[in-house]
Amino acid sequence: MTGDQYLLLPGPTPIPERVTRAMSQPMVNHRGPEFKQVLTEVVQGLKQVYRTDQHVLIYPASGTGAMEAAVVNFLSPGDKVLAVSIGVFGDRFAKIAAGFGAQVEKMDFPWGQPADPQRVKERLDQDVNREIKAILVTHNETSTGVFNNIKAISEARGDHPALLMVDAISGLATIDLKMDEWKLDVVASGSQKAFMIPPGLSFLAFSEKALQIHEQTKMPRFYWDVSLGVKYLEKGQTPFTPAVSLFFGLRESLKMMLEEGLDNIIERHCNYRDLVRKAVGAMGLQLLAQDEWASQAVTAVVAPESIGANKIRKYMLEQFNIVLAGGQQNLDNVIFRIGHLGYVRQLDLLAVLAALEITLQQLGWEMEFGAGLNQAQAFILSQTKKGE
Amino acid sequence: MTGDQYLLLPGPTPIPERVTRAMSQPMVNHRGPEFKQVLTEVVQGLKQVYRTDQHVLIYPASGTGAMEAAVVNFLSPGDKVLAVSIGVFGDRFAKIAAGFGAQVEKMDFPWGQPADPQRVKERLDQDVNREIKAILVTHNETSTGVFNNIKAISEARGDHPALLMVDAISGLATIDLKMDEWKLDVVASGSQKAFMIPPGLSFLAFSEKALQIHEQTKMPRFYWDVSLGVKYLEKGQTPFTPAVSLFFGLRESLKMMLEEGLDNIIERHCNYRDLVRKAVGAMGLQLLAQDEWASQAVTAVVAPESIGANKIRKYMLEQFNIVLAGGQQNLDNVIFRIGHLGYVRQLDLLAVLAALEITLQQLGWEMEFGAGLNQAQAFILSQTKKGE
Repeated sequence: MTGDQYLLLPGPTPIPERVTRAMSQPMVNHRGPEFKQVLTEVVQGLKQVYRTDQHVLIYPASGTGAMEAAVVNFLSPGDKVLAVSIGVFGDRFAKIAAGFGAQVEKMDFPWGQPADPQRVKERLDQDVNREIKAILVTHNETSTGVFNNIKAISEARGDHPALLMVDAISGLATIDLKMDEWKLDVVASGSQKAFMIPPGLSFLAFSEKALQIHEQTKMPRFYWDVSLGVKYLEKGQTPFTPAVSLFFGLRESLKMMLEEGLDNIIERHCNYRDLVRKAVGAMGLQLLAQDEWASQAVTAVVAPESIGANKIRKYMLEQFNIVLAGGQQNLDNVIFRIGHLGYVRQLDLLAVLAALEITLQQLGWEMEFGAGLNQAQAFILSQTKKGE
Repeated sequence: MTGDQYLLLPGPTPIPERVTRAMSQPMVNHRGPEFKQVLTEVVQGLKQVYRTDQHVLIYPASGTGAMEAAVVNFLSPGDKVLAVSIGVFGDRFAKIAAGFGAQVEKMDFPWGQPADPQRVKERLDQDVNREIKAILVTHNETSTGVFNNIKAISEARGDHPALLMVDAISGLATIDLKMDEWKLDVVASGSQKAFMIPPGLSFLAFSEKALQIHEQTKMPRFYWDVSLGVKYLEKGQTPFTPAVSLFFGLRESLKMMLEEGLDNIIERHCNYRDLVRKAVGAMGLQLLAQDEWASQAVTAVVAPESIGANKIRKYMLEQFNIVLAGGQQNLDNVIFRIGHLGYVRQLDLLAVLAALEITLQQLGWEMEFGAGLNQAQAFILSQTKKGE
């Protein structure tokens, strides 16, 4: 018997029992008082997580839906857009904007590295006629395990009027993000990441400034239209039937998150990252990202070339029922990714690292067996206090 | 104590315990073998419900998302479209198409009546240059409780090459629909109706002919792009993270539906309709739709003008914890709607009809008290067999 699966993807994450139970409530009228109460509470909770007093809407959609919503609501065909990309999801944001007729200028950085805010600043400084309408950027690049310094990118924008649009799908509530303080205009996120609920909801936060610009923009939209969303939210409803059971789950998970405290959640994710990186390093494996920009949500590990990443993932799944993510596109079979966001227990991570070490040993990787696990244990020791 | 709510909306519907339990399974990797198995099974099941051997995709979205998907995938800006409308949802389909730049010609019929296939035929016959690219039509108009004769509309199309696009969100599996036999090209549906699962999934079925046309059409799309969907489905995945827990629910509800049998399900919905209409008629209330085109999914009842529909709904909710839908737009306070689709028990309907009769009596409506309930009971009696 292998028991329940260890799911260590960068989303979807395991679901806490409290959330599962909450989602099992009987269905309610999505235009009635019970749902109005749920909607009001979750929007309030999401605003706390986004650290915003501005607008938040919830779509029945996956995260990519919220990215499309960001594009079609706040841009017109022909608008110049600066799309900063450090991986698969940065490329996707650019592709959506181009697909809807924006004039997209890509600013690419090597995979495994973050964007350089200075280069963004230089590009915007050159834009003397202020033709660039928006900057698209990824908060946490899930494909490489690298996060961008969104605060510095916002500062690099200076007084340039371009909207700053952030894909924070896997980053929100795992890595610091302060929407209002950092003057972010549009921030997308999704339910199956730090929010610990099943996939199916996505969130779009936007500034008052963005909403005003929205009224002039001309990309076609209906399902994603934020004016409709804002109008219905005022009466405690959504324009189209919401994914009610996921809302029940979200209400519960937001309670859990606010009980824990946002700063504590982010610190917890920093600890997961450090635990994983120390242990993996001690196994003699390379990490794709350097410490300064390594993601708190997911760690990309470079597999030994002699073995290949997919063989490691296969062994871990078959032997231990552990699910890790692979590399995407050029990184397929080069890296594997350990997701450590949302509902993760520290000792589960330790167990997974132990299993990884056994796997590497069995696949013929030369290392000091046990050194990785020892690092993990020592890290956890350093976080505990002396017994009395 | 009032106990659990009686939810009699035209969606979302109550959720069977089997489905709730299925949705409580632990999360899985949406790019792994378990999900591939679920996806393959539910697509197969949906094809049986649609009675098609062609394409079915599943979106994380509400039904309106599938309507938008129908428009943006199979039309180009400037395309002429004939939008047949008999109510709120027919208007919505037309509005989406117009919003994305189609040249929409509305063909409106009075609310409470179905579309006349002969008028569709005449209009298409006039289109000698075959400029009309698509006909948009609603299968079951939820706002008025009227269904359209889709088969006759398809026949009215004759050999005109226009795609026939059907919003069957509340109609599929409550009212007969045979996608392939009737030569329907695009058929949208949603999870919270006959499928008895929470809202959050929508379905888009389309013909091979539609898929070929898709490759030439030019409306912008990314999230809804059916080429991406078809490509990923071949490897047992979806392009973007699917709403996994709802898929577990859908697999279970499809099992229940196929155990019952599609013809039996449709007959059951006919019986619900007849039961409700007989009883309501005996209470001296008018029905918005005539028998010939009255929906099997929802019955629109004209409230006595002296009372108003919303007062009846309020009393039913407060006294009996029964949720009925109101009228939309011009029908607000004129009608109330009793949803009877998906997971409904016949005796629950009888109980609701008894409560309605009590409500009417308490609100001063003159009628023969008990006559409605008597009709309901007699109807059920006629469906039972003698005990031995």
